[in-house]
Amino acid sequence: MTTYRLDIAYDGTGFSGWAVQPGRRTVQAELQEALSRLFGEPIFLSVAGRTDAGVHAIAQVASFATLRPPPDALAYALNGLTGPDVAIMAAGPVTDGFDARRDALSRRYRYRLETGLPPSPFERGRALSWPHRMDRALLDECAAAILGEHDFTAFTPTETEHVRFERRVLDAAWDDEPEAERIVRFEVEADSFMRSMVRVLVGTMLEVASGRRELDDFRRLLAGAPRESAGDTARPHGLYLISVAY
Amino acid sequence: MTTYRLDIAYDGTGFSGWAVQPGRRTVQAELQEALSRLFGEPIFLSVAGRTDAGVHAIAQVASFATLRPPPDALAYALNGLTGPDVAIMAAGPVTDGFDARRDALSRRYRYRLETGLPPSPFERGRALSWPHRMDRALLDECAAAILGEHDFTAFTPTETEHVRFERRVLDAAWDDEPEAERIVRFEVEADSFMRSMVRVLVGTMLEVASGRRELDDFRRLLAGAPRESAGDTARPHGLYLISVAY
Repeated sequence: MTTYRLDIAYDGTGFSGWAVQPGRRTVQAELQEALSRLFGEPIFLSVAGRTDAGVHAIAQVASFATLRPPPDALAYALNGLTGPDVAIMAAGPVTDGFDARRDALSRRYRYRLETGLPPSPFERGRALSWPHRMDRALLDECAAAILGEHDFTAFTPTETEHVRFERRVLDAAWDDEPEAERIVRFEVEADSFMRSMVRVLVGTMLEVASGRRELDDFRRLLAGAPRESAGDTARPHGLYLISVAY
Repeated sequence: MTTYRLDIAYDGTGFSGWAVQPGRRTVQAELQEALSRLFGEPIFLSVAGRTDAGVHAIAQVASFATLRPPPDALAYALNGLTGPDVAIMAAGPVTDGFDARRDALSRRYRYRLETGLPPSPFERGRALSWPHRMDRALLDECAAAILGEHDFTAFTPTETEHVRFERRVLDAAWDDEPEAERIVRFEVEADSFMRSMVRVLVGTMLEVASGRRELDDFRRLLAGAPRESAGDTARPHGLYLISVAY
């Protein structure tokens, strides 16, 4: 049995997310089909971050194990069998038993906002257009509040496969994107994330920053609260999985 | 009569270039149609850089004159009438008689190359994938040779509307794009450019940098030579009009 690790980037625009769904184009399905062709048997991928429809990845990690002999130049062959909106940056054997999902110590996401108007043609599908009032000091206060261990029940859909709603946030901060005049972004790293968690956090922080919600209310939500008490789910096209630590 | 200036950005992917062509989607046609609707009479645009199909613009400048009264919030109204791949950054009255094409002192273009493999999903249509051998010192020598006044006959199509083939290059240099790991770019500023000129310059420089053409041969071409003696026309999607000086 040989275990393989894939390092993958994708533009999420043309995908219904990572996970296989019947009749939909998904990153997992596209990669598994290519791998199954190359190895001559069905391959199932474990993944670090199950991104939703429209969410991008700069450094997704997946793994699989097989008894079959390796094809030549695996990354090159995979890139030839997948669309131009997916790139296999690296692919090769790793320590036996490595599992991209189970072994990940933390995941890091970035959410990109484009301030001002008009939206740049070059940020279509890459950043959320946010021409509204936005108090950066309040965003910074929100990010500081997110740091540490909290009950994020309010920040994930009510119908959920999750059984534990506490997550440990290792880093959370807003900054200005270098060399990009109007892009403001939120980066957050945690042991793991629940479905839509980053997007609901961003949507709720934007309510605070635009004066539609009190900072103290945002802080209260982090102690555990029903989903309906948090804000909207920010649209997926501003979100990127940017790294996974092992 | 009031003269107006428009500052425009566009993603060239979905356009058959700037200039009106029957039956094709072009930036000029889309803007003229919107302006004619807003002013209630046919509007004709003068433009600083007539970009080809697939070429992008970060800061294109166009102008027109009309006797009609101005609509409210011209830039806002125009953005509402044009596609998301065009952005009118500014629109308003300027000194009488201003002409975006005639009054431009210089134009500046950027050509972006993505080195290495695989091509990033986020650079599709934004940079030319160039995983080949590329000697940066030779590129720098080529750029230095381009500086100054030359006869660029070899760098524009034989069938041409141009009558004068000398152009004065004010700046020409290769650099690494900040915050972008694998992007190398060429920037060039000149009084004016002929059709395809930047793209043929890039295509020919890449022949030198990959060892398929001598540097001295490139230098000779700058003294005037038939079109067939220069290299290929680099694909349009790496090219951006980035500024116009008045």
